Amino acid sequence: MAQKEISLAVIKRLPRYYRYLGELLENDVVRISSKELSEKMNVTASQIRQDLNNFGGFGQQGYGYNVEYLYTEIGKILGLDQKYGMIIVGAGNFGQALANYSDFERRGFVLKGIFDVNPALVGISIRGVPIMMMDELERFLKETPVQIAALTIPKTKAPQVAQDLVRNGIKAIWNFAPTDLNLPEGVVSLNVHLAESLMRLSYSLKTQEECEEE
Amino acid sequence: MAQKEISLAVIKRLPRYYRYLGELLENDVVRISSKELSEKMNVTASQIRQDLNNFGGFGQQGYGYNVEYLYTEIGKILGLDQKYGMIIVGAGNFGQALANYSDFERRGFVLKGIFDVNPALVGISIRGVPIMMMDELERFLKETPVQIAALTIPKTKAPQVAQDLVRNGIKAIWNFAPTDLNLPEGVVSLNVHLAESLMRLSYSLKTQEECEEE
Repeated sequence: MAQKEISLAVIKRLPRYYRYLGELLENDVVRISSKELSEKMNVTASQIRQDLNNFGGFGQQGYGYNVEYLYTEIGKILGLDQKYGMIIVGAGNFGQALANYSDFERRGFVLKGIFDVNPALVGISIRGVPIMMMDELERFLKETPVQIAALTIPKTKAPQVAQDLVRNGIKAIWNFAPTDLNLPEGVVSLNVHLAESLMRLSYSLKTQEECEEE
Repeated sequence: MAQKEISLAVIKRLPRYYRYLGELLENDVVRISSKELSEKMNVTASQIRQDLNNFGGFGQQGYGYNVEYLYTEIGKILGLDQKYGMIIVGAGNFGQALANYSDFERRGFVLKGIFDVNPALVGISIRGVPIMMMDELERFLKETPVQIAALTIPKTKAPQVAQDLVRNGIKAIWNFAPTDLNLPEGVVSLNVHLAESLMRLSYSLKTQEECEEE
């Protein structure tokens, strides 16, 4: 199945399918019809059939989808059939909250290290992962395979730290600092800008237009 | 200027314009050309002109945009010309991180209360806002005008708590629990699903296709 043929809109819906299918699996559901899935997910059954047809039409008329197979295939498309090493840069409340989130591990994002500049945090571990000082970062990244860095530091520091991370081999930045990063070719990033998210919510509150799913 | 004419794609870009214009204001920039703004924001000047023309074309040929005026107008469209009362439900690391974020206040989102079920948190305040117990929520919402609730609790609890919030007058839910809420007409919500965000990043890392801005 050629990935190029799948539209961005479909791709953006995949993590949500993946989440629902994962919940079905946890509840030992083996097969599900597009109608049942549509009721659960609050989208039309025809939308589901259309979306999932992009991946080779796992469903059979009157027989439904094989939950585990569909879950696995969507996982592959999302790149979840492999493990990623991840670090968190910035061990404030927010960085610590991310570090505590064992859900990520389950999806293959394995937390390898947490970094900060605050010496008061030395010696603290979160779920067995130690908080280290930023001056240990370069050496650490030489010794440990890490592809993804979550950036939870103030916006004034973010551009420089992002450059340092990229220079030391990081390939993907999950950026929570409220600023845009200019990264070189071959490095991807995804911004989670909470203040902007809140503004979209207030727009939605004002106009009563539904926000799009994040 | 009729808001109905503005497309969702433009609306989604507005918070980013608002952020950049706010930074210009902080640096005492009075006017800016679409060309300068485009270089800063890494979008084309023609895209900027097109987007901002939606709001009555504040720019004059060869003269640029009045930064403060544009900032104020975009703020009005986003509903930022008024104040909102906000509560945070769930005072774990993540809820505490949100509570510490004074940036929201500056945009008119005023934190009124923080709620949790953990008695160990009683007596703790964050930026002067006390953490209260969930059984105080109903009385609190009767006495305090609050429109927005940030939900930072486990997914198993989220649907019931969301219902309680709505019954007590909450009109907008900023949902960080990794589940979808089914809310009645007239109540808006915006999901920030971090695990799904991370999956989009891994998709992007795998395919080298740029993620869309959150």
